[in-house]
Formats: sequence, structure tokens, C-alpha cells
Amino acid sequence: MGVRAQVLGAAAGGGLPQWNCGCENCNLARRGEIPAQTQSSLAVTGNGMDWAVLNASPDIRQQLAATPALHPTGPRALPLRSILLTNGDIDHVAGLLTLREVQPFTLFATAEIHRVIAENPIFSALRAEIVERRTIALGQSFELAPGLTAELFPVPGKVPLYLEGDTVQTDLVGEQTVGVALTAGETTAFYIPGCALLSDDLRARLDGAALLFFDGTLWTDDEMQRAGVGSKTGQRMGHMSISGENGSMAAFAGLEIGRKVYVHMNNTNPVLRPGSPERAEAEAAGWTIGQDGMEIAT
Amino acid sequence: MGVRAQVLGAAAGGGLPQWNCGCENCNLARRGEIPAQTQSSLAVTGNGMDWAVLNASPDIRQQLAATPALHPTGPRALPLRSILLTNGDIDHVAGLLTLREVQPFTLFATAEIHRVIAENPIFSALRAEIVERRTIALGQSFELAPGLTAELFPVPGKVPLYLEGDTVQTDLVGEQTVGVALTAGETTAFYIPGCALLSDDLRARLDGAALLFFDGTLWTDDEMQRAGVGSKTGQRMGHMSISGENGSMAAFAGLEIGRKVYVHMNNTNPVLRPGSPERAEAEAAGWTIGQDGMEIAT
Repeated sequence: MGVRAQVLGAAAGGGLPQWNCGCENCNLARRGEIPAQTQSSLAVTGNGMDWAVLNASPDIRQQLAATPALHPTGPRALPLRSILLTNGDIDHVAGLLTLREVQPFTLFATAEIHRVIAENPIFSALRAEIVERRTIALGQSFELAPGLTAELFPVPGKVPLYLEGDTVQTDLVGEQTVGVALTAGETTAFYIPGCALLSDDLRARLDGAALLFFDGTLWTDDEMQRAGVGSKTGQRMGHMSISGENGSMAAFAGLEIGRKVYVHMNNTNPVLRPGSPERAEAEAAGWTIGQDGMEIAT
Repeated sequence: MGVRAQVLGAAAGGGLPQWNCGCENCNLARRGEIPAQTQSSLAVTGNGMDWAVLNASPDIRQQLAATPALHPTGPRALPLRSILLTNGDIDHVAGLLTLREVQPFTLFATAEIHRVIAENPIFSALRAEIVERRTIALGQSFELAPGLTAELFPVPGKVPLYLEGDTVQTDLVGEQTVGVALTAGETTAFYIPGCALLSDDLRARLDGAALLFFDGTLWTDDEMQRAGVGSKTGQRMGHMSISGENGSMAAFAGLEIGRKVYVHMNNTNPVLRPGSPERAEAEAAGWTIGQDGMEIAT
């Protein structure tokens, strides 16, 4: 078998609904008129038994409870072998605090992301003798879980919001934002929940993949301003939009990828409304809109 | 009107089900045979419009989404005025990371608890110019929200687990673990989610209260050992048990309190099973077993 994935959380930081947001989508989700979505996380397995979770969202307790494949198999026995972080953003690391219950697993990240975590004593709740923190260099192949190999590669992005200085470079290429290549058997899948720009390098890497989970944060760059809920553009947050001439739909149009799935959608994104024209447009361009609980096998 | 409270989360750290726990209660909750409970938090109001939340649990996003009284009233308008922390435990502070969305509120805590938070740069996501961190001295009366006055008092306890050294004092009395007195109109309610010992001082303070939310972590001191899910006793964790001659049922037997509600139940606690003899015994002793969504008015 190849890579099997389950979307634990399809929304970006804040989730749908976001606690303090009264935008159209959040209100619809609170009324149950569109599906609620938890924050960014993907579970993956190569053998159907041993699982890794890509990014530990603040909603991880709720996400694991809703995912039978990851339920305990004994008083303290679990199918979860490891957690891998793709950046140091709060929506990707805060869930580590939930995983503090003297439960062994391996925490994979780049040196830069491990450093961001280690600066906070609260994460020592993951005791060093129980949770092994393994540093992974870019381009190094490693066993993420039995039957599943992974490799990290740099993706244009920025440092976490809470570490931003006075000036912010949003297309840094290095260890602060990474994508993941996942290989099981003959197939390779990619996971890139945040990406500021589809560079030529990245295009070449992704061409021919069996499966891709990609940054679907915003439909348009100024969407949050227009919804009256924020002053930042997508570019400022380190995310390329879905639509438009510089968007991901256009950028991927020439590539051959077996299945393309948007994840990490901000709560303002119209693709989160099942009947919206924007969602229909993305689907017509060959994209699937990820949602909580969605299972995809290659 | 007096104090109105809504239980946002009735469980202790880990919640019910806890992500890695295969104990009887957690399995029953996963199968939907007993109600699931989120982690320790209480919402309170004195005027029915302006709310404060006591402790920011890791589940706060899910808790706020499930509580219509706390839903946004506009794009970025909320009935939530403040958060108050009663200690620095992860189950009481991790939810602050969810409250990072450029939303003004006041964060109340003792100097000691603020210090624990400030040692972690990740909490700077609550930007100082937007979220005011107000230090409250023990015994000082302050406005927690319009129409609701509060006062903090010391409760025997310990420092957070992630700050424990080689030796641990579990009955420290100071700023690291506090109880809250809440006053609206003529009535006073108390919130004490963690308490190692009911001292004479504390007994005198609580006698005659209209409403009490109290530490119901464990039924028996060695419950986690017997369930095979941990090596610690309740005393070691800074919690007095419900049952037994040193338990809270016995300790409160002589006091006059209008309504007594257990909160902060560990997932191993048999009172979390609605039909259990232990729950019947606690109810016969005049206690209510708190649960998510429960509303109580004085």
C-alpha cells in the first residue's frame, strides 16, 4: 500500500468558527449551516497501523477523539508514533502541550523549529526522557513511522507571528517553514500547509506526485480586509492565494499531480461554504477542498 | 441578580477522553456511553451581559463555540471581558494561545502566575498593547467584569508540574494556587478547582457561601495507580480526594453552603459515570457533579 492520510483539521489558525470572529462563515458554522473545521493537522500512515501526525494543532485533543484509527489500543498504548512540525506557528505547535501525558513518541522538526520550542519552558512538559526531540536536516530522508519515509524541504515563508521583528521577510527560504515529502511503497505524497510562492524549484519537485496537500489559506489576497476582520494580506502572512494570476490554481495548472487537496483554509475563505461558486471553481480546476475527517489513500 | 456561572469544562487536565488514555471512563466516553467532558474552565457573569472566564483550558475554542452566551455579537465584538488564571498549570493556561487574535481583554492573575507565563515568549502572541495583563494581590477586591467583583485568596497547592524541582511541596500557601471569591449583588460564589487541603482558614471563609465550585479531581487518593494509568497519588498532585476521612465530602460536612458543585474531575474518577454508586454517594452528601454546559445561578 501507499501513503494513507486523514485530515484531522482543515482550517488555518483560529479554526472555523474562530472564537472571536463574527464573519459570515464563522456564523454559518456556529449555526451548523456549514461544517465546522478544526485547525491545521494531517495524520498519515504507510502501513495502516503506525501513524504520524503532521503539526500539533491546539485542537489535537478533539481531533484525536474524533479519529478511531488513532484511539488507544490499551491503557497507555497508541498507534501514534511521531509528530512532525512544519513551522513554529501557534496553530502547529500549541497542541504539543496536550500531548504531555508521559506518553512516548518522537518529535521531528528542523533545528530552527526545535529552537523556537525550546525557548519556552512550558514545553518541558514533554519530558526529554519520554519524548525524543529529533532534529532533521533539510533533504535528509528519515523514518517518520514504520513503513513511512519522509523528507523535509524548504518552502518560501516567514518566522512565526509571535517572533516577528519590525521588518518581516515573507519569502524566506530555510528551516523556518518546510514542506514534507512522504513515501510509502512506490508512491510519494506532499504536505505543504503554508507557502508564500511556488518557486521553480518547488514546481519541479511536485510535478508527477501522486498526492498533494497544499496551502489554501485565502481565496484572494485582501480577503480578510474585505471581510472587516483584519488588516493583513495573504502575502504579508506568508500565504499565496488560491485564485488570481499569482494564485495557486494558476501556478499548478501545468503540473501533473494525481490528487490536489487544499488544506489550512482561513475562516474567511469562501471555499469553506459547500455551495459557493469559488468552491465550484476550485473543484473545476481539479482541486479537492479538504475537510475534517476526510480520508485519502494513494 | 447574583452570580451566574456556566461550566465550560468539568474535567481535569487531559479531559474525558484523554488523548492517550484507555481507561474505562475514556473508552466509555469515546463510545458515547457517558458524556465527554472538556478541560477545567468556568464562565461567570454578574449582569448577564459581560462575562469572565476562569482559566483558559486547551479546549477553549471548542468550549466557546459550544456556549451561545459567549458568541461574537459583531465581526470582532464579544461578551468576554476578561480571563482569570488560578494557577499556571497547562490545563489552565494553554488556552491563552487560542485567544491570540488581536482581541482586547484583560488577563488577571497573581504576580507569580504572570511570571510563569512571561517566561515563555510564545505567550507574547497576546500582544501587550491589546491584552492588558493585570496583577492582582491576594485579598484585593477588583472588578472582574462589569457587575462582577472578585477577590483571590491562597489555597494549599503546588507549583505547576513543568516547574517542579527534585523535591515538591504540595501544600504551599501563596500566590501559585489561588481560589476566587465572586460577588454580584448580595451573593458570593467561590471557585476552587485545585486544593490540597481544607485548612481552618479556608473552612471559615467558605462557610455560608451561596455557591461553591470545588476540586473534584479524584474519588480516592490512589485511583490513578489502581486504574493502571499513573504512579502519582492525588496528594502528590496537590489535590484532596472526594471520599474517605480526609476527603472533601467529610471536610465540608459541617458547613452551610447553598450549592456545592464538583469540577476538575480526572478522567479516572467514577463520578463521571452517571449511574455509578460513587456519584450517588456524592449526590446524597449534597454535591452536584459538574458537567460541560451546566448553568447555575445564585
